[in-house]
Amino acid sequence: MTLKQFAPWKIQTDDRFKLSDIATRLPEKIEKTDEARRLKTLFDRLNQLQTMLYASKTRGVLLVLQGMDTSGKDGVIRHVFTHVSPLGVRAQAFAAPTEEERRHDFLWRIHSKLPARGDMVIFNRSHYEDVLVPQVRAWLKPAMLQKRLAHIRHFEAMLHDEGITLLKCYLHISKGEQKKRLQARIDEPDKQWKLQASDFEDRKLWPAFMKAYEQMMSATSTQLAPWYVVPADDKSDRNRFLAELLVATLEDMHLKMPQATVKPGSFKLL
Amino acid sequence: MTLKQFAPWKIQTDDRFKLSDIATRLPEKIEKTDEARRLKTLFDRLNQLQTMLYASKTRGVLLVLQGMDTSGKDGVIRHVFTHVSPLGVRAQAFAAPTEEERRHDFLWRIHSKLPARGDMVIFNRSHYEDVLVPQVRAWLKPAMLQKRLAHIRHFEAMLHDEGITLLKCYLHISKGEQKKRLQARIDEPDKQWKLQASDFEDRKLWPAFMKAYEQMMSATSTQLAPWYVVPADDKSDRNRFLAELLVATLEDMHLKMPQATVKPGSFKLL
Repeated sequence: MTLKQFAPWKIQTDDRFKLSDIATRLPEKIEKTDEARRLKTLFDRLNQLQTMLYASKTRGVLLVLQGMDTSGKDGVIRHVFTHVSPLGVRAQAFAAPTEEERRHDFLWRIHSKLPARGDMVIFNRSHYEDVLVPQVRAWLKPAMLQKRLAHIRHFEAMLHDEGITLLKCYLHISKGEQKKRLQARIDEPDKQWKLQASDFEDRKLWPAFMKAYEQMMSATSTQLAPWYVVPADDKSDRNRFLAELLVATLEDMHLKMPQATVKPGSFKLL
Repeated sequence: MTLKQFAPWKIQTDDRFKLSDIATRLPEKIEKTDEARRLKTLFDRLNQLQTMLYASKTRGVLLVLQGMDTSGKDGVIRHVFTHVSPLGVRAQAFAAPTEEERRHDFLWRIHSKLPARGDMVIFNRSHYEDVLVPQVRAWLKPAMLQKRLAHIRHFEAMLHDEGITLLKCYLHISKGEQKKRLQARIDEPDKQWKLQASDFEDRKLWPAFMKAYEQMMSATSTQLAPWYVVPADDKSDRNRFLAELLVATLEDMHLKMPQATVKPGSFKLL
């Protein structure tokens, strides 16, 4: 798929959209046999593109993953990035800010973890938590929230100009799907380590979170750093969609393998 | 002195000024006896203000020092900041970017060294080197230079909003004064460790550096992050001027000692 084909899931700048108007599932289900073959092709291509990114070091890639609890941020990282080499690929999770991080500007802890040219970094949560949570909990005055959104736009424009390609994805699940997944965390011993009281607190604030996400994505989805809504009720569809979108983004960068810095023919093996 | 009294040395946004129109010396020389007393008062007040900054942790301070070689960046740090506690005060020098730093955006290495709220950080050279040197050496296309200047404005506005007060100083020496100081580095064994071939290369490009400084300061001197030109041909005048300007900036922040978090009277000593 080309990047243009993802237009239905791309948020436009200042778009007044409702997440509830966007389906949490893809319209058609691909046959399982086709899907396996498609995934194999996709992951092979992802590997090639990441190798070109790493070898040429002309640009870096930042993939931002956001979404409600159980929306599949950990899962999509495991399923998609198991297929690329950790050489040049790094996943970075952000928890609640530490005491030291809270004494700095909200982009301080983010900036230090950004990719260099040649690297691909996946953010499991991000600087968007610092406009999302304070908005829902009313810790931030509206004027300060607007300032932070503008600062994020400028910060991401700087990153783009300095060689970082940004792809921001909201993993979109329904409230019903979250109920099933949280119940599984209660019932299944293997999943209980993920249980957190805050998940249940945040669930009560679902409408406020949706509103905050809508406002935040609308304010920060730009041509150079767009937001996409990824239908995420079905896990395998979500993984394939994200892999397709990432590959399309990398294809759109027109990466090239660098020229050898020495003449390969000049070496003689003794 | 109040901050307003420094207006003659403050660069206005988009001001088309010439550094050659600004004197590298102060108009009147204060008597030596008065000066010692004035300095003592100044340093005592600087100490009080820095203690309030550290105790209240409501804002941080970033002092940026730029200037040609021998303009006194090291000297002013030594003379002014010897009088404050290193608890909460840090000087940070930036050399030519490392291989790793060059693979990141130009603000990456800067951001990680910025003050937290409560801290005062002095930058000996800064992100301004990354618009200055590439401009003089013509490594950067003019469009990219303009973008970097805009990114710096936005970055510094973000810092201000997030609690960092910025003060940017250009240490202004004449080409004649530099000649004397470089000659001293050649002649005096104690100063020879500072000799660098690049100082002599940069001296040849003096007019290009002046032009680059003028353009850069004019583009990035804002109400929230102003540039001041510090007359620096006379070392003791330079030190006093900078201390006065820093104290005026700190006074303007209206810092307060925080309230005790416990009732002091509630403790009983056994």
